[in-house]
Amino acid sequence: MNIDAVRDALSHLDLEKSKAAIRAKSRDFFWYSPVLKDRLDGVEADLVVSPRSEAEVIEVLKACYAHDVPVTTRGAGTGNYGQAMPLAGGCVMHLQHMNAVREVHPGRVIVEPGCLLKDLDAECKAQSGQEIRMFSSTWATATIGGFIAGGSGGVGSVHWGNLRDLGNIIRLRVVTMEAEPRILEFRGEELARVSHAYGTNGIITEIEIPLAPAYDWVELFVTLDDFPSASRFALDLARESGILSKLVSVYEAPTAHSYFPRIQPHVTPGSQLIGLMIAPHSMDGFETFLARRGDAKVIWNSQVGGWDRQPGTVFEYGWNHTTLRALRVDPSITYLQVRYGEADPVEQVERIRARLSPEVLQHLEVLRDAGRPIFAGLSLVKFTTEDRLNEIVEIHESEGAMIFNPHRYTLEEGGRQRVDDRQLAFKREADPKGLLNPGKMISWDQPAWSYDRMYAFDRLRRVAAE
Amino acid sequence: MNIDAVRDALSHLDLEKSKAAIRAKSRDFFWYSPVLKDRLDGVEADLVVSPRSEAEVIEVLKACYAHDVPVTTRGAGTGNYGQAMPLAGGCVMHLQHMNAVREVHPGRVIVEPGCLLKDLDAECKAQSGQEIRMFSSTWATATIGGFIAGGSGGVGSVHWGNLRDLGNIIRLRVVTMEAEPRILEFRGEELARVSHAYGTNGIITEIEIPLAPAYDWVELFVTLDDFPSASRFALDLARESGILSKLVSVYEAPTAHSYFPRIQPHVTPGSQLIGLMIAPHSMDGFETFLARRGDAKVIWNSQVGGWDRQPGTVFEYGWNHTTLRALRVDPSITYLQVRYGEADPVEQVERIRARLSPEVLQHLEVLRDAGRPIFAGLSLVKFTTEDRLNEIVEIHESEGAMIFNPHRYTLEEGGRQRVDDRQLAFKREADPKGLLNPGKMISWDQPAWSYDRMYAFDRLRRVAAE
Repeated sequence: MNIDAVRDALSHLDLEKSKAAIRAKSRDFFWYSPVLKDRLDGVEADLVVSPRSEAEVIEVLKACYAHDVPVTTRGAGTGNYGQAMPLAGGCVMHLQHMNAVREVHPGRVIVEPGCLLKDLDAECKAQSGQEIRMFSSTWATATIGGFIAGGSGGVGSVHWGNLRDLGNIIRLRVVTMEAEPRILEFRGEELARVSHAYGTNGIITEIEIPLAPAYDWVELFVTLDDFPSASRFALDLARESGILSKLVSVYEAPTAHSYFPRIQPHVTPGSQLIGLMIAPHSMDGFETFLARRGDAKVIWNSQVGGWDRQPGTVFEYGWNHTTLRALRVDPSITYLQVRYGEADPVEQVERIRARLSPEVLQHLEVLRDAGRPIFAGLSLVKFTTEDRLNEIVEIHESEGAMIFNPHRYTLEEGGRQRVDDRQLAFKREADPKGLLNPGKMISWDQPAWSYDRMYAFDRLRRVAAE
Repeated sequence: MNIDAVRDALSHLDLEKSKAAIRAKSRDFFWYSPVLKDRLDGVEADLVVSPRSEAEVIEVLKACYAHDVPVTTRGAGTGNYGQAMPLAGGCVMHLQHMNAVREVHPGRVIVEPGCLLKDLDAECKAQSGQEIRMFSSTWATATIGGFIAGGSGGVGSVHWGNLRDLGNIIRLRVVTMEAEPRILEFRGEELARVSHAYGTNGIITEIEIPLAPAYDWVELFVTLDDFPSASRFALDLARESGILSKLVSVYEAPTAHSYFPRIQPHVTPGSQLIGLMIAPHSMDGFETFLARRGDAKVIWNSQVGGWDRQPGTVFEYGWNHTTLRALRVDPSITYLQVRYGEADPVEQVERIRARLSPEVLQHLEVLRDAGRPIFAGLSLVKFTTEDRLNEIVEIHESEGAMIFNPHRYTLEEGGRQRVDDRQLAFKREADPKGLLNPGKMISWDQPAWSYDRMYAFDRLRRVAAE
């Protein structure tokens, strides 16, 4: 790899000059995981470039292809699976300048990948009273391209399901990593080639996604005294087809008291907490639902206010902001991503609580899966050793829960632990030299990998901090 | 009852003068049922009045209360359970003049009860790009008040569930039948007192309901060769959380060929038909879903057209328009309303088909119930005798299906065959003389009724046609 040649070829573009900025822009939020922190700390790019257009993206890809330089593409780098970490060094391509909202139509928007989720929502709302169907809890800082390439769902999934579900992405425009990069337009089945592929097999330069109506969502915190009542409350609420919700989160005690300082004055260590976003015109229905559960108490309602120190937006307690908040208080906390898909997921969670609480504290997000509400878990784990973490994973699997392991940096290990043939086949076609985000697709590097232990990329390059 | 005194007292209002019009306005679509046709043909009001305002509604109620005249309130009279039939004669109060759309807000509308569903949708769309969440297939002719007082769901229920589900009605303004009628505002649990109560315990004078975004829904007909594949297709499509649909109907062969003349040239007698309304921005997702089912063929797409004689709107083949279309071809056809709620409703339907097809032809509507898609059946039944019809009901019940019997004219028999204590308690309070829509609430007339046979109202009054 000839870094200098690439640097020269791209000198007319926005190249990061500061060493500190290059280091910063080589990192994502991988450090939520002590395992990834151990493996990936010190990973650093040789150069960071921020193209302003698809034409400049093609210039970057051509130069790097010619000189065998790896390219790791990123948005804001808010992912937690090391999605945006340039494991083999080389070039980090930052898409922050490609942030235009191109067209807003009834039910859909066309946008460049570097647009922040919050800016995209603001533009859609201003132009048409619409908003995107779902977003990660990093809405304020993350990009839509990063969400599509590295995310799986989030706030809004309680209504619209997983990001990968049919209909939640309409079209992706993709540039290949070849001597002469091609521009492709993917729809339908083709979308699965590059969505949630961490930029390993093509660079997304334009996104078309569906929109939903924008409402002034009412944000609520509700407490209950015991956990199964709280999880049942959340599931039953999501089963109310006439009550439109955007977020239904459950936090096992003492999460609220221990890790949410703004909420602490309003709860006890035993308080089970539920976070909600409800459409304003569904609040009557919600109040009726609530009144049927005598033990549930609303402690925060954004329409009412009344706290000396306001909690901020409720979704910034949910999804992976929960882990972030817990980490700030207790650096030994990490997490797992779990899916509880049994017919009665409340019971399934209780079985795991019986074996693991409080070493593992439940944090549940209700999402719609195959047409019905289930629980995704982003459980808080008190980390001791990697062996114990692996045991905890096995305990979950023995209870029928599926783990998307956030202590692994490959697509396969962070996913369903199997090769995605569509992604692999497209990488063969679109990235023949294997330069895009190297080390993230096991099936490319080691097709016979057996998944019996954590994968270790053999070209991993770490630089000591200065 | 002193009809003449009421007629005099209300002479300044819009009173129907024509005998033929009084007869016409005393009838609803009860004649879909040969059983109800036998019992209710000849039922006729003594007078028909159409108040222009809530104040005039109160005048009507006061006059009728003073002179012990029953009042049966109606919208367009498109119901099929005899909801609007004045069993004891007296006064029919028609709310056609009270049709103002009062306020349209983000997510909700305030409207008078006599507004036609299509006019309400047109106004909401024109003012705000919104539409009502659900409507009956009689959208073009039926009123919102009639839908709330006599309906249970319809086009849109595949997404939003049943009309009675929390959140699908926000507020109802209700006038009582007393010497001095009171005006009440109902929300939350109170809504169940008067929604789907056929106007037996109060008169709805204003309605607040939630809205959804209005889209230019794509209308489709799809055919498959065997019925379980068709019902599975429909259920699986509704389970796709990212594909926004408004109607998913299934029609067992040879319904399409035998009873839908506009569709007949495009199908065979063996064609299983599916009718769909899909959001335009979900069409890519739908096409992807479709391509996974090699045997499913789109025969009509409203965006494409291409038939010499267009089929009209697809929802006018669904819900109870199916029965209407079949009746026009074969007057011996009637129907049943069924709910298939098992975990695998496809299998449940197959068990019933094995015992009853083709005497009973399946017509399924997918609706969301307790958060998951299930089947409502509006099955086409080849009528022979009442005894056989009762046997068919029993066969359904023995297979775990719930029947909402449309061959009965009481709330209880057409519902869950039990007393609704909330409705009864409110009738005691709001209609102490029992003058509102008499004969429709068994628990009022005969609290000890055992439901061992069809209820027969003892004051039923029928008039021979002239």
